[in-house]
This record gives sequence, structure tokens and C-alpha cells, in this order.
Amino acid sequence: MSSNDRQIIAEIVNKLETSWNAADGAGFAQPFSEDADFVNIRGEHFRTRVAIAKGHQVIFDTIYRGSSVQFEVESVRSLDSGVLLAHLKSTLRAPSGPLEGEHHSLISIVVVQDGNQWRIAALHNTLVAQPPSFNTGKTASE
Amino acid sequence: MSSNDRQIIAEIVNKLETSWNAADGAGFAQPFSEDADFVNIRGEHFRTRVAIAKGHQVIFDTIYRGSSVQFEVESVRSLDSGVLLAHLKSTLRAPSGPLEGEHHSLISIVVVQDGNQWRIAALHNTLVAQPPSFNTGKTASE
Repeated sequence: MSSNDRQIIAEIVNKLETSWNAADGAGFAQPFSEDADFVNIRGEHFRTRVAIAKGHQVIFDTIYRGSSVQFEVESVRSLDSGVLLAHLKSTLRAPSGPLEGEHHSLISIVVVQDGNQWRIAALHNTLVAQPPSFNTGKTASE
Repeated sequence: MSSNDRQIIAEIVNKLETSWNAADGAGFAQPFSEDADFVNIRGEHFRTRVAIAKGHQVIFDTIYRGSSVQFEVESVRSLDSGVLLAHLKSTLRAPSGPLEGEHHSLISIVVVQDGNQWRIAALHNTLVAQPPSFNTGKTASE
């Protein structure tokens, strides 16, 4: 990856993180394109920046009230000129409620250039499972 | 979406489905680019077509032995010239073992044109949660 690609992703990820930690749904949605796709850890599919803002404000005010997230950029690569793919490790801490505790997930984002702006066109999130509940025979190299 | 975009995705999805149902790891990996990224339902991140083939052959021969999948294309859209985003609904049926039963998931794929070929550059999969374990206040429009 180029340092510029990494910088583009870092700015977007910083906006997501600071907005989540301020419980700001509109701010969280700001880096997304208007027609963005968002798949959450429950396999629910949201579409449009407006829906992403609204849905996040709801969880910031309810099940994730008082929560904080920390994102770590795991990898960034270019898929085409003007299209970046990044993977983020997320650590979410919820102080109370049905999701009380610390949750780890892995996020993919596809970021597309639109003029001078880079926007998230698609985000997909999956909880990281706890240490294996079964032996798949995988080796460390997989 | 254009009918051509949908046809590109349909051919790729058909290859994934028939290969899974034939327990053919190399066939399953064939539509991926050499440096593809794959995030599975456990939040594990695999890289390269070779690793995707190997990892799938292992699960086809063990925990998913005798399983079948059915993919339904939920949506296809163009992110840029030569870059498509699609979402797939997956139904997996495992006849026995620790994952016996029927499992529903939602998959995102990013497909990139490389000459005459279209290849999956990134796949991300999340199990669809059972009916809400809590009320997030979401409305049907979200």
C-alpha cells in the first residue's frame, strides 16, 4: 500500500472512531457515500448514509449507550484506481446492557474516490469468534 | 444495475455454489483473484486464492462434509468502472457434526475486472442472527 492510501483510510477510521465515542450518529455516517451499504454483526443490511446515521443514533442511545470503540487498521490495498479495500480490527466496550463487555470484530471497508472526497461505499462487520469451539484442522499459515 | 453486471455476478456465484456442493476446494477458490481477501463467519481473515482453496478443502472434508449451500443474489451495483459490489444470501445445510442444521448468512463480494476476467477481490461473510434478542428500536425502513 502507499502511505497516501493509508492516510486516506486513517482519516476515515478516525472519524468513525471519534464519532462513535461521541455517540454522534450523523458524524459516524459522514464518511459514507449517500448510497452506501452497511452489513452489521447480526447480518442486517442497511442502505444509505441517512439510514446508517439513524440506525447508529438509535444504538448509541440504547444498547450501546456509554460504549467506546477502538479501531486498528489491519491492512489497506488498492483494488483499482480510486478504490481502496481496508480491514479494521474493532474493539468495542459496552459498560452495561445486554451487550455489556468487550467485543472484538473484523470490519471490511471499500472506499471509493468521488472528486476530492473518498467515501465508504460498503462496510461489512463480523464478530471474531472466541478460541475454536471445534477443530477444523487449520494450520497457522491459513 | 445492468443486466450484464448481474450476469457477471451470477456466473461467479454459480461457480461458488456448484464447487461447494461438489466439495471442491480448488473449484471454490477459482473465481477469486490470486491476492483475494476472505473473512469468514468467525471473523477469520484468509488471504490468497491458494489459502482459500486449502482452507475450504479442509472444511469440506471435515465440519462441512456432506453439506450443501444455496446462494441468492440480493443486490448488485457498480462502484466504479470495472468494480462491482454484490450481496448474497447464503443458506447452508450441514447434515451432521458440530454445525449440524441450517445456517443463514449474508455475504458481500467485491468483484474486479482483470482483462477479460472478473475476479472476487474480497469476500466477507456474517451469520444472520435469529430474530432479535433485544429491541433496538429499529423500524422496518432501516
